[in-house]
Amino acid sequence: MKKIILLLGALLCVGAFPLSGRSRMVNESVSSKILGQTIAVNVYLPDGFDASKGPYPVLYLLHGLTDDHKAWQERGGLQTVLDELVGTGEAVPMVVVMPRAGDPDTHRYQNGYFNVRNWSYEDFFFGELIPALESRYHCGGAKARRAVSGLSMGGGASVVYCQRHPDMFSSCYAMSPWLDNKNNEVGMPADKEDRLYLTGASVREHSAVDFMDRADKDALDALRSVKWFLDCGDDDYLLHLSMDLYAKMRQKGVKCEFRVRNGSHSWEYWHTALRLSLPFASRNFSR
Amino acid sequence: MKKIILLLGALLCVGAFPLSGRSRMVNESVSSKILGQTIAVNVYLPDGFDASKGPYPVLYLLHGLTDDHKAWQERGGLQTVLDELVGTGEAVPMVVVMPRAGDPDTHRYQNGYFNVRNWSYEDFFFGELIPALESRYHCGGAKARRAVSGLSMGGGASVVYCQRHPDMFSSCYAMSPWLDNKNNEVGMPADKEDRLYLTGASVREHSAVDFMDRADKDALDALRSVKWFLDCGDDDYLLHLSMDLYAKMRQKGVKCEFRVRNGSHSWEYWHTALRLSLPFASRNFSR
Amino acid sequence: MKKIILLLGALLCVGAFPLSGRSRMVNESVSSKILGQTIAVNVYLPDGFDASKGPYPVLYLLHGLTDDHKAWQERGGLQTVLDELVGTGEAVPMVVVMPRAGDPDTHRYQNGYFNVRNWSYEDFFFGELIPALESRYHCGGAKARRAVSGLSMGGGASVVYCQRHPDMFSSCYAMSPWLDNKNNEVGMPADKEDRLYLTGASVREHSAVDFMDRADKDALDALRSVKWFLDCGDDDYLLHLSMDLYAKMRQKGVKCEFRVRNGSHSWEYWHTALRLSLPFASRNFSR
Amino acid sequence: MKKIILLLGALLCVGAFPLSGRSRMVNESVSSKILGQTIAVNVYLPDGFDASKGPYPVLYLLHGLTDDHKAWQERGGLQTVLDELVGTGEAVPMVVVMPRAGDPDTHRYQNGYFNVRNWSYEDFFFGELIPALESRYHCGGAKARRAVSGLSMGGGASVVYCQRHPDMFSSCYAMSPWLDNKNNEVGMPADKEDRLYLTGASVREHSAVDFMDRADKDALDALRSVKWFLDCGDDDYLLHLSMDLYAKMRQKGVKCEFRVRNGSHSWEYWHTALRLSLPFASRNFSR
Repeated sequence: MKKIILLLGALLCVGAFPLSGRSRMVNESVSSKILGQTIAVNVYLPDGFDASKGPYPVLYLLHGLTDDHKAWQERGGLQTVLDELVGTGEAVPMVVVMPRAGDPDTHRYQNGYFNVRNWSYEDFFFGELIPALESRYHCGGAKARRAVSGLSMGGGASVVYCQRHPDMFSSCYAMSPWLDNKNNEVGMPADKEDRLYLTGASVREHSAVDFMDRADKDALDALRSVKWFLDCGDDDYLLHLSMDLYAKMRQKGVKCEFRVRNGSHSWEYWHTALRLSLPFASRNFSR
Repeated sequence: MKKIILLLGALLCVGAFPLSGRSRMVNESVSSKILGQTIAVNVYLPDGFDASKGPYPVLYLLHGLTDDHKAWQERGGLQTVLDELVGTGEAVPMVVVMPRAGDPDTHRYQNGYFNVRNWSYEDFFFGELIPALESRYHCGGAKARRAVSGLSMGGGASVVYCQRHPDMFSSCYAMSPWLDNKNNEVGMPADKEDRLYLTGASVREHSAVDFMDRADKDALDALRSVKWFLDCGDDDYLLHLSMDLYAKMRQKGVKCEFRVRNGSHSWEYWHTALRLSLPFASRNFSR
Repeated sequence: MKKIILLLGALLCVGAFPLSGRSRMVNESVSSKILGQTIAVNVYLPDGFDASKGPYPVLYLLHGLTDDHKAWQERGGLQTVLDELVGTGEAVPMVVVMPRAGDPDTHRYQNGYFNVRNWSYEDFFFGELIPALESRYHCGGAKARRAVSGLSMGGGASVVYCQRHPDMFSSCYAMSPWLDNKNNEVGMPADKEDRLYLTGASVREHSAVDFMDRADKDALDALRSVKWFLDCGDDDYLLHLSMDLYAKMRQKGVKCEFRVRNGSHSWEYWHTALRLSLPFASRNFSR
Repeated sequence: MKKIILLLGALLCVGAFPLSGRSRMVNESVSSKILGQTIAVNVYLPDGFDASKGPYPVLYLLHGLTDDHKAWQERGGLQTVLDELVGTGEAVPMVVVMPRAGDPDTHRYQNGYFNVRNWSYEDFFFGELIPALESRYHCGGAKARRAVSGLSMGGGASVVYCQRHPDMFSSCYAMSPWLDNKNNEVGMPADKEDRLYLTGASVREHSAVDFMDRADKDALDALRSVKWFLDCGDDDYLLHLSMDLYAKMRQKGVKCEFRVRNGSHSWEYWHTALRLSLPFASRNFSR
């Protein structure tokens, strides 16, 4: 026993990494007819993953405008954080799917999560990505076992995906979400052919705030079937969008958790948000 | 005004980084006669730093066995975290000095903070590093304006430096500290010529726990002039050392803050510890 | 709708109380043949409680030496805290049973949770209290739906009850636990007929630390079937007991969460501990 | 030594209270010509208080509509919380002044902090209360050593007092503040002679939101000399007021910390807010 402890000590110290169980990060990809290309996906599989034991719950975790599918792992410490939370029981073992929202040539900006000219990503997401990965890893398969979360552009997409597909997700945790672009919040170039212009326009077009304004009784009932969480820093330049959306949701009787914590539009904020997001998704997977 | 906000939004979004004021990270080095080589040092200078406005308070922030002087910035997010804490007033503007505890050829293990054969680092630290940098950046200059903190091997060194030089530091925040090696906690190689063997032996020799056992009335009075904080994860394989030390400090009437938070010997833990360490140092710089 | 909001505002404001759903506090009692008297019990029933929907999970929440069965509600804010946590999904709807560990004539000290002369409380607890209340409120009925927690003397009893009856509880959250009295931690009177002397002696006799020392393989296996959590303040005069117990549990491979937070042996500490204890019990009720 | 520890243990256990140093709560009163009556005031004096060592910093801590001057101590645990925070250095030793905002005959509602018919409380506050107590306890005496905080009606008054007297306070921490009554947020009776009607009308009249709308350049400069903090629960029926005010402050370039934490308009929220408020005031007293 003592020997094992010593060995353990030695192992831990060499890498100075946390013991991360045997969870695994997998470099995946989905070949898309809709997009006409192959989309890279980073996948987390929990300790002891065994497809025959599924279906597992699955979380779709979306990156922002200037990041890619590796960001949650490389900058957010996804594997370490989730392993710890599973270890204490605060999160359940789940599959986490982190797809790229841009093509391999993307440099500074990703194309985003909505259908725009030559980039029907929303169609790809629901028509190809979800079916492919939920089959491959025996996860999801029903609203009760599916959640979505994301930061900035990915946070906005989390909200909009749940507004437009409320039958698909049990919960939505949006971090610092880019929910509209009505005031050119993210400054767009004048050139309407520019990729970034198209992305900004698609966010404006899919305004989550306007959606709430327009929602009728049936839409509201559907929204109430999702557990909502908005989380945005007090120094975030997008905070007014979250405040607007939360005010409207409250006014219309759609229950939503709301937090304004200390911070700005930064990875420091998302790093700590992840520790709240994963337990939230876990609590709202059906038992 | 609106234009500025938009521009700000655009800027923020491009990098998805927090607005980090104009604090700066500086690649420094100190040429050491004692060590016969030049030691790399990473230095944080606060927003608006101006040597003529000093002396500034200074924090010495020490890395662990398998990291180097860049680790606190690259893995701990030092600049972002400290900028945020200064922004809210939880930390005061200070200089942070992060020296390398190994030579440029070091691969997996650093040599450590104590005097061992051909590596008189403690002599260098107090005889060359402190005078050179406090003069260069007009900081420190007195116990009341000087603090030390660190993780693992650097956490142990923080404690031992304050035990042996209690007149030098106003406070000590030790994270997951390697305080002794009496049970070969960090497994040492058998080869007594091995660099790692020497490092482990030096930690054993400088046991912070034994120091408390031996401390007489005068030593205890001196220890009481330092503000102490021990912080170690409940899953850390070194936790028993912190518990031993804390029990002895309490028994002998040396006041010390103690926390056992959730986590292991990992950067996830130190990342959050940093948010506690910087305000602690700040509160204990003299007003 | 607006009218309702206004009314709600008015209602909330009058009492300045949180909206506490329709959870209820019930003054209960259990007539005990074993103790020869009736024992008062404070019971929390969750919003929408309906015995026919049971069995509900049940938490036994134990008070300290100088408190009584009303303390968790009156000083700890049990109803408000649990209503909030159920509201956010961090705790599941459960029945909470808070029995008095003393007779109605008790003044400053309660008699405690163990069998002592003329006070066979442990026999009462398992032979009368549990059956009576779990039948009356259709809760518990199995280890998977039963948890125990408590503070100080009640925290020690939580641990000892789980050590001696590991088949009865799915989890144990001990706050600032009085786990032994080997050093007369709680100063006992010399008079061996004194009620307080008997209580202290019974804690010494049921030392949770000694139990771990003596535990053989079968006992350890049984202990591993319980989820453990020890939580004690760094300024608590009983902290050494928790550190001793945790060190032994770790050494013997019985997984346990451990936290040392800032604070002393006080209701400020237990008030915040409650917010951690209720989600912990909830996570460990079987799904 | 051991004997002392045992005794300490015994003492602590008897009351199960934290050791609260020798801070003191004093029942004070101020005889007011303006109000034509004597106003009760609860005062906290820090450990070792000695008027000759002053001037001490002073915090004015204001209660809500349905509470009185004893509420912060009896429901918020002021003395315990502040003693702990001073003990760890997170708060500085300060005098805390908690005046009653109603006359002794007040039953369910207090009269409030503004000048209304026959109740010129703001005149009393600045003209009599502050001079009397700052002289009696040698505290305050200057903006740099004076802060204000409060909950609900007292939170709103904290903001308005700082808007109207920015030269008087270094910082303002408003909890769940009642900042306006434009939508009859707190339902007022129709009877314009009713005391509660007058209170609500005075809050409407002193709208903190309207104040920001009207503020010109000079007013904004003055507001920037105060450190601001707004803290309101996501389930609080007054949250929209804090969001409105924060949006306007940000828009007009008046820096303010903003938090939306989990909770409603309740003492659970204010209990935890107090732990944030006292360090905030402390950090912003001038050094």
